[in-house]
Amino acid sequence: MQNPTVLHSSPEDIEQAFYEALEAADLEALMDLWADDEPVVCIHPGGPRVEGYHDIRESWREILSSGVLQIRAVPVHKIVGGMVAVHNLVEQVVISGTRGEPQVLQVNATNVYHKGPLGWKLVIHHASPAMDIEDMEELDEFGEEELGDFDSPPTLH
Amino acid sequence: MQNPTVLHSSPEDIEQAFYEALEAADLEALMDLWADDEPVVCIHPGGPRVEGYHDIRESWREILSSGVLQIRAVPVHKIVGGMVAVHNLVEQVVISGTRGEPQVLQVNATNVYHKGPLGWKLVIHHASPAMDIEDMEELDEFGEEELGDFDSPPTLH
Repeated sequence: MQNPTVLHSSPEDIEQAFYEALEAADLEALMDLWADDEPVVCIHPGGPRVEGYHDIRESWREILSSGVLQIRAVPVHKIVGGMVAVHNLVEQVVISGTRGEPQVLQVNATNVYHKGPLGWKLVIHHASPAMDIEDMEELDEFGEEELGDFDSPPTLH
Repeated sequence: MQNPTVLHSSPEDIEQAFYEALEAADLEALMDLWADDEPVVCIHPGGPRVEGYHDIRESWREILSSGVLQIRAVPVHKIVGGMVAVHNLVEQVVISGTRGEPQVLQVNATNVYHKGPLGWKLVIHHASPAMDIEDMEELDEFGEEELGDFDSPPTLH
């Protein structure tokens, strides 16, 4: 169920609410932002495609059950055309490394918002790890041997 | 330089031209599709963010220098709102595995098109590997040990 009293009047408004909900691990607030009356897609970094309001809710419930997310999101490109807005962002997400120490994961995100009767709603969140393989090999957590076979995909497309 | 005689009248039209250019390894045809008069962003699967027409051209030149790309792209979600269209697709890209055998890489792509005086142009191509880590571990090319430290990011966001 969505809360019809929360109307987001601009893409910037709903985007701010999105990252605030993640930082607060507030699943209800987060899911109020997603359209529930049209197809929606969410791709988490390194994860599978999740389609549909219900499955997206489940994916976020699982993620947020681990606690709040520390995210700094910087929009680098915005396109607005009538009822659709697209923001491409760089997210810096603080995660726990393999030895428990905080580690910053850089993520590329494309957020798509659609304006309907209830204001702007989120319809696509496509996020993927931004580090290239060379960067990853330089980290302590990723040995060169461990990623040796991971070289091919990035060079092709 | 863009070719003003090639006008794409719909998002579907330019999308078809995009994948045909990749399959033909035709850099000129490919770069005719990108807007050269506004900010553009291209994120290749597992690669870094590439911004700006010139750098995007260089990235594709390097990729296409290896030859044609075999890609089957299936749109799974389309949003059109006036001058902006967003297509979310599943791409199946045939690459050479570590032993030279053909291997299919599944990719999630979000393509953003913007309608301007020269018809529809591509302004964002965000592509990322679609396989989740469990799928990757099942492949011969990716041993469990090799990806052992890669478990954390997908579970967080």
